[in-house]
Amino acid sequence: MKLRADAHRILQAALAAVNPRGAIHRALSLEGQSLRIGNDTLSLDTVDRVLLLAAGKAAVGMSQAALDVLGSRVEKGMMVIPHTHDPPILPVETLKAGHPVPDEHGVRAASAALQLAKEAGERDLVLCLLSGGASALWTAPVEGVSLSDLQDVTGRLLRTGATIGDLNSVRKHLSRIAGGRLALAAAPARTVTLIISDVVGSPLDVIASGPTVPDHTTYAYALNILERHETTAPASVLSVLRAGAAGKLPETPKPGDPRLDSSKAHVIASMQDALDGAACEARRLGYTPLVLTGRVEGEAREVGRLTAGLAVGVRDDGQPLPAPAALLLGGETTVTVRGTGKGGRNQELALAAAVALEGQDGVLVASMGTDGVDGPTDAAGAVVDGLTVSRGRASGLTAREHLTSNDSYSFLQATEDLLLIGPTGTNVGDVVVVLAA
Amino acid sequence: MKLRADAHRILQAALAAVNPRGAIHRALSLEGQSLRIGNDTLSLDTVDRVLLLAAGKAAVGMSQAALDVLGSRVEKGMMVIPHTHDPPILPVETLKAGHPVPDEHGVRAASAALQLAKEAGERDLVLCLLSGGASALWTAPVEGVSLSDLQDVTGRLLRTGATIGDLNSVRKHLSRIAGGRLALAAAPARTVTLIISDVVGSPLDVIASGPTVPDHTTYAYALNILERHETTAPASVLSVLRAGAAGKLPETPKPGDPRLDSSKAHVIASMQDALDGAACEARRLGYTPLVLTGRVEGEAREVGRLTAGLAVGVRDDGQPLPAPAALLLGGETTVTVRGTGKGGRNQELALAAAVALEGQDGVLVASMGTDGVDGPTDAAGAVVDGLTVSRGRASGLTAREHLTSNDSYSFLQATEDLLLIGPTGTNVGDVVVVLAA
Repeated sequence: MKLRADAHRILQAALAAVNPRGAIHRALSLEGQSLRIGNDTLSLDTVDRVLLLAAGKAAVGMSQAALDVLGSRVEKGMMVIPHTHDPPILPVETLKAGHPVPDEHGVRAASAALQLAKEAGERDLVLCLLSGGASALWTAPVEGVSLSDLQDVTGRLLRTGATIGDLNSVRKHLSRIAGGRLALAAAPARTVTLIISDVVGSPLDVIASGPTVPDHTTYAYALNILERHETTAPASVLSVLRAGAAGKLPETPKPGDPRLDSSKAHVIASMQDALDGAACEARRLGYTPLVLTGRVEGEAREVGRLTAGLAVGVRDDGQPLPAPAALLLGGETTVTVRGTGKGGRNQELALAAAVALEGQDGVLVASMGTDGVDGPTDAAGAVVDGLTVSRGRASGLTAREHLTSNDSYSFLQATEDLLLIGPTGTNVGDVVVVLAA
Repeated sequence: MKLRADAHRILQAALAAVNPRGAIHRALSLEGQSLRIGNDTLSLDTVDRVLLLAAGKAAVGMSQAALDVLGSRVEKGMMVIPHTHDPPILPVETLKAGHPVPDEHGVRAASAALQLAKEAGERDLVLCLLSGGASALWTAPVEGVSLSDLQDVTGRLLRTGATIGDLNSVRKHLSRIAGGRLALAAAPARTVTLIISDVVGSPLDVIASGPTVPDHTTYAYALNILERHETTAPASVLSVLRAGAAGKLPETPKPGDPRLDSSKAHVIASMQDALDGAACEARRLGYTPLVLTGRVEGEAREVGRLTAGLAVGVRDDGQPLPAPAALLLGGETTVTVRGTGKGGRNQELALAAAVALEGQDGVLVASMGTDGVDGPTDAAGAVVDGLTVSRGRASGLTAREHLTSNDSYSFLQATEDLLLIGPTGTNVGDVVVVLAA
């Protein structure tokens, strides 16, 4: 009982550390006639207007907090959020667009953002608020490439297992907004970008396809990615990349490009903050915390088994450290769907851990999507222990069968192990908490 | 280059720590008229004869070292090893039997061992040397249960994912030698059992089905396991377990049973020793070592991806500790065979790690079976780094394709990343070394 209450507190602390409003308020404040942005300071005497451009799953919370700080100094703004989000009541224009698959709404949103950026003058500040999903929500295929061609090559690369870095290198060379081009459009206006990162390691030029930062990659590199993954691409895509590689199209701005001197980007919340927040709360509750990694990938059920082994290893072997301990992992797993059940990657991870923990005392595994939405369910994840499987059996449910049919939701609903917190309006990936007492 | 040489040294240190001859020599020595066994001492004045009974994959090395120590005090002995092992030249009778699937040879070997135990008198010492595989090599189905019925129920339980503890609970209640019955046969002679453990956590009553130690489980529990896993079993098996549960057959000896007072068991080598040995050598080479867990389970390729993430996390995030560091993991993964290629679980783990590490500097993943034999290959595993995938490409091989077809061996052979050390004559599971500099 104690473990379970502690797990909930630790997860809440992880969420609090990446709350978009909190992150903006920590990063951005007015101090007299100066605007503090992270460790930088900008004199507002030099700024006529602030233009706000927000895109992504955390756009609402980030915009709200930026408006808390800047108030009427924001003269104009626009925000693009997924179709599934509720539009907020904010004094900035709100557009909705397709995510994760981009649509024509996203093309219109990107054009509007570029238009607003171009309007900015030398004494204007473009405040860009980015979070996960912005790549799809701002879609601006270059001339000659259709939206469906862009979707086609994106889909193919995803299926070959390309990294997000490689995928976004290709996207950046097919886009009018990504790869620093939004900041080029805004220049000579200054651009400040605040980012909630959902990419491991938070590389600025990969998150949201880096619309305001220099691009390390080239047309030639993007072409090479397609070859390396043996990906066939639409003729229009190959034609653009080949023309670019032959020097017939302007490259994305590279590091050191003076046109981006007036653009600064800051990551204001990431998985590392969530893990640090969780570790801090775990320590307060009497557990020795250890952040194992922020780079978990792979099949959810396999990660679940491993975390169960880690829990027992802490309790019985004192490895990697003696109990009471909290091991913290971040990342994003995947689910290979084989059954027809209902669930999400965090619930499936938890159910697999529960199967491996059956009958064990003093151990717990919790897995949570920091966006509060795990798969097509109303749960964010689940908290399981050594009694989860037998609680299910008492309700006539067999954990292994539910795992086989990817039906984690109904099992964990019956055992009352679901984590029901509702959408959080942020996303830095998934957090897994392993407790052993 | 340095990382690679260091990985080989660390793996060698892991092997040295679980070498069966070294383990026996550390655990067993003559001191005057006393025999030191671990922390116990036995006066040889009270011992007329030593009878040696060895079974398992490490039986040869263990017997050899015990004979080094005891010489002609061993009056009689017998050893059972897998059909695939070369018989040694030792002054004890050597039998060969089926492993992992038991056969009639194993039934004869178990009968011979029981016969020798029964011959032991009050002033005799039965020295029992056990290692992985002994459950199958000593097969003694109870009256009324045929070898094929025993194979049948074992196979069914394995397919449902039963733990080794549950599987061996059933086996112990269908056996004339397991679950303490060998020590009962030897009583009133003293029995000393030295064990090289291949079971996580080294539970004495699970390793080799605990022929010389008390059994925590019952006929009723064994029956319940079949029900819990919804396993249909041959009628003969159900009939024995039901008769036992109804009190019509004698139970295995339980903890506290005075008939086992004269039987002592010692684990002399296990995964923990291999991990400790690896950690010690890693520290000597300048890496901060951390034993993450000795309880790795799951699909090899998924564990491989995770270890690659761990390596990069050490290098880039300083998690779970800053570079240079060596993360050490032990356990045993599984491979779901989907292709027709050649490989083993350690090679598949390594190839998956190589795919995830492509292009990364200063990181390495190595995976090794401590028995030196990974799958049906002549390799023990492999050592991979950020160049493995491109080395393969230079030979015209695609890492992802080889991974898909479970064909890790030919890829890692072409890249010269295989670990070729030959059979080690011991087995404590698999060791994974993750280095980041």
